[in-house]
Amino acid sequence: MLELRLVQGSLLKKVLESIKDLVNDANFDCSATGFSLQAMDSSHVALVALLLRSEGFEHYRCDRNISMGMNLGNMSKMLKCAGNDDIITIKADDGSDTVTFMFESPTQDKIADFEMKLMDIDSEHLGIPEAEYQAIVRMPSAEFARICRDLASIGDTVVISVTKEGVKFSTRGDIGTANIVLRQNTTVDKPEEATIIEMTEPVSLTFALRYMNSFTKATPLSSTVTISLSTELPVVIEYKIAEMGYIRYYLAPKIEEDEDEHETKPQV
Amino acid sequence: MLELRLVQGSLLKKVLESIKDLVNDANFDCSATGFSLQAMDSSHVALVALLLRSEGFEHYRCDRNISMGMNLGNMSKMLKCAGNDDIITIKADDGSDTVTFMFESPTQDKIADFEMKLMDIDSEHLGIPEAEYQAIVRMPSAEFARICRDLASIGDTVVISVTKEGVKFSTRGDIGTANIVLRQNTTVDKPEEATIIEMTEPVSLTFALRYMNSFTKATPLSSTVTISLSTELPVVIEYKIAEMGYIRYYLAPKIEEDEDEHETKPQV
Amino acid sequence: MLELRLVQGSLLKKVLESIKDLVNDANFDCSATGFSLQAMDSSHVALVALLLRSEGFEHYRCDRNISMGMNLGNMSKMLKCAGNDDIITIKADDGSDTVTFMFESPTQDKIADFEMKLMDIDSEHLGIPEAEYQAIVRMPSAEFARICRDLASIGDTVVISVTKEGVKFSTRGDIGTANIVLRQNTTVDKPEEATIIEMTEPVSLTFALRYMNSFTKATPLSSTVTISLSTELPVVIEYKIAEMGYIRYYLAPKIEEDEDEHETKPQV
Repeated sequence: MLELRLVQGSLLKKVLESIKDLVNDANFDCSATGFSLQAMDSSHVALVALLLRSEGFEHYRCDRNISMGMNLGNMSKMLKCAGNDDIITIKADDGSDTVTFMFESPTQDKIADFEMKLMDIDSEHLGIPEAEYQAIVRMPSAEFARICRDLASIGDTVVISVTKEGVKFSTRGDIGTANIVLRQNTTVDKPEEATIIEMTEPVSLTFALRYMNSFTKATPLSSTVTISLSTELPVVIEYKIAEMGYIRYYLAPKIEEDEDEHETKPQV
Repeated sequence: MLELRLVQGSLLKKVLESIKDLVNDANFDCSATGFSLQAMDSSHVALVALLLRSEGFEHYRCDRNISMGMNLGNMSKMLKCAGNDDIITIKADDGSDTVTFMFESPTQDKIADFEMKLMDIDSEHLGIPEAEYQAIVRMPSAEFARICRDLASIGDTVVISVTKEGVKFSTRGDIGTANIVLRQNTTVDKPEEATIIEMTEPVSLTFALRYMNSFTKATPLSSTVTISLSTELPVVIEYKIAEMGYIRYYLAPKIEEDEDEHETKPQV
Repeated sequence: MLELRLVQGSLLKKVLESIKDLVNDANFDCSATGFSLQAMDSSHVALVALLLRSEGFEHYRCDRNISMGMNLGNMSKMLKCAGNDDIITIKADDGSDTVTFMFESPTQDKIADFEMKLMDIDSEHLGIPEAEYQAIVRMPSAEFARICRDLASIGDTVVISVTKEGVKFSTRGDIGTANIVLRQNTTVDKPEEATIIEMTEPVSLTFALRYMNSFTKATPLSSTVTISLSTELPVVIEYKIAEMGYIRYYLAPKIEEDEDEHETKPQV
């Protein structure tokens, strides 16, 4: 028996919008600690990891560990039927091949039950080792999304270069080149508008903008984003989900000599 | 000579938007009592009936009964050229094969005349008998529109079931099932937010969502909608037009055994 | 060495949006007096002339007259990456085949450099003689845009007729006819809402709506538009750019007998 009641149901709607363009089908794993997902994108280049901790739910009952395979497109269709102020409850009976999403309006005058078939999905859970990063940038998530969108109108890849002074995003395309520099800035009125850089040594890495622009679908989940960079490691783009957990995207850097669209797989 | 002056011209714009996707060509009937229309949709499954009573017009002159055949798409194109605060006057000379829509801005600084050719349209006026309904549901029109839109993302038909406790909208599709229950609720702050059920016996009927979603184009005309249901009768979806009349849609229920897209014609 | 610093960078963004659909490639001419452009549209029917006077820039350095050929689509892509509150600087080194657009955020925390290749474009600069016009109409730019858009839903051409009382815009199409009359009105609360007519004799000229609707892309640049009309002369549609200059569109009238899509070239 599984029953997870999330008062701020809009969170789950936003989570789905952050994943569904990247991953078609995935297993949601439910255990005493929380509701989580780990999946490669369909071209096996990027990895997404989601955690919603059990403490963040108003009610969290999960009698035994369970892995539920869902089609994220269909799940998103159902969650779009929830109002933004609705309470969402995820329910599944033991051994059942369906999951039920229940949406309650704040006044309790409207109750909806959406039942979806589960799928069998092969997946291996990758252990992601803790790593030390050469540079960690925390910046406003909307600014990061804007930069990735802007650069994609010029080129296909972005070079992210971090120094103590700031972080530079660069691209090059048929019509010209672009460089956008954000200065480190910790003295802002609102903490979420700060750009904060922690680094042990300068780093400069190249990534496919197509993936970056897929990751920034998570922007509504958090006002800030954290970008962790190290040579030889996949970049981690993390959006914290208030008081519940996070969504993290991993993407391997492109090798500089590599001029074509080939990507290396993440080394996690 | 026909001259109908409507101060709240935006009403007529909204009326056209409520009909034009359902019906291509139709006769508008003008008499001493009002300006009305009755038409089947192009697949002859649904019926729409409109009434704008003469008292609702600032000036209403209709020397003799007249039936004016109009292409609703073209009429909509012209009405879209009226500002939302414009006064609209419909004018036609006796025996003329054209109708003129005049739009006056509130300041009278801008006056537009749009002249459209009339068409000869064969149509028989169906007498719609007064009927007793087993259940009548009044609910917020925006909520009804939202439910029809949401269910259409899951399935093709909706089962509307009414009991004393509430009204249930259900569907079933390839990706799963959905049930949305609205409780009867008469104790709300704003009367237009109430869900009110009058019934003599429980009723459960199945309808094509495609038509329902066409009917809900009338949502901007009224904050509430009334759904009248009886076994063996077409459902009536009514939107009142403030102080002027109504727009009503009739749709025959689908026979339950009937698994394909075949619809029965309304028995009016 | 060229360096033009424009505090209100959004002006340049709007200028590009006003031109790019009409002209693909064009030379921007820079001299001590200002930054200007003159170009025919790709079908050689309409002419656009832009002037941004040097006094309107916060900093204006132009060591020698220079003509820079740019692809306006690419330039627009780059300027769209500037924030609406950004300061934009246009920079070019002597003899360089590139131009750089620098965008500074108001807080100076974000600095972007976009470098674009210049093109060699053949163009002859047309001298546009000063002319006396039979009628000059000044009216709200949003109203003019609305009228051109509305009429284009009915017909392909607009007849603009000016008398002392007002200005009439007419069209005719398959579905009917439309006439929109604006009365001269100088006694309005806000001067930019006035419709003011200066005329020596009545005039009535026909123009292609397709071009008019291209010109009205300049609407965000100014709350008013000035339309200057004379028989035998191209119409001038002018949008003033506050304290800096103007953008002017020239379009030859269609000959009345001319029923097909053929346009005469502007006689400038």
